[in-house]
Amino acid sequence: MNGAESLIKVALAAGVDTCFANPGTTEMPLVAALDSVPGMRAVLCLFEGVCTGAADGYARMSRKPAMTLLHLGPGLANGLANLHNARRANTPIVNVIGDHATWHQAADAPLASDIVSLASPMSGWVRSTKSAHALSDDMADAIAASLTPPGKVATLIVPSDCQWDDAAKIATPRAAAKPATVSDGTIKRIATLLKSGKPVTILLGGPALSAEGLKTAARIAAGSSCKLMVETFAARIERGAGIPSPARLPYFPEQAIEALKGTGAIVLAGAREPVAFFGYPGLPSKLAPEGCAVETLGTVAEDVVGALDHLAEAIAAPKSVPSTQSKLPPRPSGKLDPVSLGAALAALQPDNAIIMDESATSGGAYGTMASAAAPHTCLALTGGAIGQGFPTATGAAIACPDRRVISLQADGSGMYTVQSLWTQARERLNVTTILCSNHAYRILQIEAARAGNTEPGHNARTLTELSSPEIGWAQIAIGLGVPGVRVETADDLVKHLENAIRSDGPHLIEVML
Amino acid sequence: MNGAESLIKVALAAGVDTCFANPGTTEMPLVAALDSVPGMRAVLCLFEGVCTGAADGYARMSRKPAMTLLHLGPGLANGLANLHNARRANTPIVNVIGDHATWHQAADAPLASDIVSLASPMSGWVRSTKSAHALSDDMADAIAASLTPPGKVATLIVPSDCQWDDAAKIATPRAAAKPATVSDGTIKRIATLLKSGKPVTILLGGPALSAEGLKTAARIAAGSSCKLMVETFAARIERGAGIPSPARLPYFPEQAIEALKGTGAIVLAGAREPVAFFGYPGLPSKLAPEGCAVETLGTVAEDVVGALDHLAEAIAAPKSVPSTQSKLPPRPSGKLDPVSLGAALAALQPDNAIIMDESATSGGAYGTMASAAAPHTCLALTGGAIGQGFPTATGAAIACPDRRVISLQADGSGMYTVQSLWTQARERLNVTTILCSNHAYRILQIEAARAGNTEPGHNARTLTELSSPEIGWAQIAIGLGVPGVRVETADDLVKHLENAIRSDGPHLIEVML
Repeated sequence: MNGAESLIKVALAAGVDTCFANPGTTEMPLVAALDSVPGMRAVLCLFEGVCTGAADGYARMSRKPAMTLLHLGPGLANGLANLHNARRANTPIVNVIGDHATWHQAADAPLASDIVSLASPMSGWVRSTKSAHALSDDMADAIAASLTPPGKVATLIVPSDCQWDDAAKIATPRAAAKPATVSDGTIKRIATLLKSGKPVTILLGGPALSAEGLKTAARIAAGSSCKLMVETFAARIERGAGIPSPARLPYFPEQAIEALKGTGAIVLAGAREPVAFFGYPGLPSKLAPEGCAVETLGTVAEDVVGALDHLAEAIAAPKSVPSTQSKLPPRPSGKLDPVSLGAALAALQPDNAIIMDESATSGGAYGTMASAAAPHTCLALTGGAIGQGFPTATGAAIACPDRRVISLQADGSGMYTVQSLWTQARERLNVTTILCSNHAYRILQIEAARAGNTEPGHNARTLTELSSPEIGWAQIAIGLGVPGVRVETADDLVKHLENAIRSDGPHLIEVML
Repeated sequence: MNGAESLIKVALAAGVDTCFANPGTTEMPLVAALDSVPGMRAVLCLFEGVCTGAADGYARMSRKPAMTLLHLGPGLANGLANLHNARRANTPIVNVIGDHATWHQAADAPLASDIVSLASPMSGWVRSTKSAHALSDDMADAIAASLTPPGKVATLIVPSDCQWDDAAKIATPRAAAKPATVSDGTIKRIATLLKSGKPVTILLGGPALSAEGLKTAARIAAGSSCKLMVETFAARIERGAGIPSPARLPYFPEQAIEALKGTGAIVLAGAREPVAFFGYPGLPSKLAPEGCAVETLGTVAEDVVGALDHLAEAIAAPKSVPSTQSKLPPRPSGKLDPVSLGAALAALQPDNAIIMDESATSGGAYGTMASAAAPHTCLALTGGAIGQGFPTATGAAIACPDRRVISLQADGSGMYTVQSLWTQARERLNVTTILCSNHAYRILQIEAARAGNTEPGHNARTLTELSSPEIGWAQIAIGLGVPGVRVETADDLVKHLENAIRSDGPHLIEVML
């Protein structure tokens, strides 16, 4: 047994059985070990940003880490943007990065770079393996680190000689840590606050966005005068008919400030204290009104659903709340725009779908209508690093082969990791991409206007328009092995969406907005 | 005048007039300044790896830096792999990375990350601007740092308030540093070595690979018994009829060791001491034979061409050497393979072409034939981080609108930065891509076999084959606005290559190998 085989063995023993990979020469012993040690599903991605984004989607859905296998500093670098999103989503991921043999590192060969410096900003845990003997312990530690609540990106750097040298043992997987229980004192303090008559907003995030968490929160709201909101970009939230759907904290700071106006206390339940996504002249970083208390019921690393449950009990909240069902809009016809697009998707999405929403400005209408759709799981772009949608949809489909994945994807962001479509084709994944083609980085055009640049000049237009040439998304999809079609009316969208959802394998529908 | 405008003004004053950009909200004042201060050509790239690779190609050809404009840590991260290649090529590049407003950084907003930690491994100079007043001085320093011999990647991080706040002044561009002259003592020492009768190999690299440098080296070889070799991956080398074409140091260590066998001394002229690209069991890091002296005539940061000139004089080398002209193979017909592909390109490439060679295993035959082709400039993948070819071809075409660029591109690497094709279409660049479609990461299959994995199992095949599904490159090109065609015979390749070279704008020819 060599080091590489000991790494794969301990991964399998710990339940890590899926590897999103784009290896190179320094990972060859690990590639061989993926065959000599049976049990790991290896998924080739044609760019590392696909590997890391897929690992994120996989773990958001399966609640266990996948492994990535990446090649040296540049291979990791290509995956960092989606590791950034995973870090903000608190997703457990175990990156295995090959490195030059320990004795070759002093040579500063062309592909050498400071991998630790690259990995650290996007990882909660980083280690370089020192020997083949240490490798399986290091891997066991990496997996345990990734599972430390609330979930972390763990990066293990493995020199190639530590892969091919003999290894004497396989480590025992570490016991998985559990989220800490919220103290009775905290529950009492928040219960008192809720009964104080002060206008309280509970901001729900992370684990509180499960169906159970949202239902318990709705009971608390019914049993007190408090308001509920959910964080702006949820790693994973359950939505649809029968599931309470509190308003989302708005994205732009002016609107968020308006939404929080009059709040006397914000109670954080798995969410972070609300801050502006960007700093703007004359607007604050923190969005809570002046003088508003910010209290924590539970952090994302704690058992927030349990805490909500105790809180509901403490305030003697009703045992259940009738669900206020919003009405589905009719199937749209005629013009294609964000409203008819949203209506088509909300009407047609099958039960228990997974919606990966990186629709940016095109998905606003859908976001409102989705609460009336069939129950589903929605995954958002968590860290603002565009290019998460395609890969995360890919990983989610691998985690949940029995569920339909719908990837609601903006065009500008989609181009970042378009290579994902090939993996969807190769693995025959049931992913339907609705590609929102508005031929612009629309959010930047909005931001330019907000900054007073209302009549953008040549260069500002050059840098925010995606027309000239127009991108042919259906053609690109076909080139990557995914059936693609362009639609220009709502009727055609309905027709092709119905078809795609009914058929097996990936599809891409290019929606001309 | 705000900080952003002061930055653009000092850039233009220093001769930096091209900006490869993919901005976001934190760069909006700089985007506005690209219009309020006229003179900068802004080129939109649909992924940051395209921006940085294009800046590399631009500066390799124009000998002056371009500016990149990237969005926060994740935007920079997406560009790091090609910055790695640029660092290994000693290319001057000035990255301008927007950051959150100074007063917003404590909020740890979703897109915040440690940009310095990300930038440092791939940069020779990094600074974070502290105020709008300091910005133009910082930019002048960044440009000067990038031009410090041999050329550096300089990264300037600019918080958004430093862009929008008022700036009082525009800095004066710094005087550009010149490469240091090699001392007479060194020239004498190497001249003595050449006359000593010891078998000497001069390893040429960096600036020594200009036509002048290669001709002077050929005179030195003619006037002594020394052998010439060129470094394995040259950032830029002049090749073709009339230009001496010493053998390249082979890529695999066994072959490099064989090529250097019997050498008593290696003289480095703009090249680094030869080391193995990767470490392999039983093979050394350093490739020079045991006991072989390694002497430096001049480093890549010194005036190596001047040093070669002095050396030629010191050994009284002949004033010129008749060029040994190798014969062009005839235009190929019949089967498409690396040999017929190489023959077609060598026969048809026009005078003064720029060849961006990221052909990996498909380009070996062409590499040998190219010495007989029309004189041209060849750019190689310098740092081993695949995905450089498409972007670097794009930047080279922008630097040299009067020259034809031919992008000889492997399929696996090409998929990394395929978005480049859109920029080629938008900017109507005269780039002809020859896409070598062999449906595999062939180099990895070779590496697996070298490591003894001669009968790869399911996972090893999964991770190295690009078939299933086959990638439709011509379709992808068309989807990105570039005319694309698939060819399956050498005759068709010749026909379409002739057409593409004669017509304006970009073309892609998918060569089925």
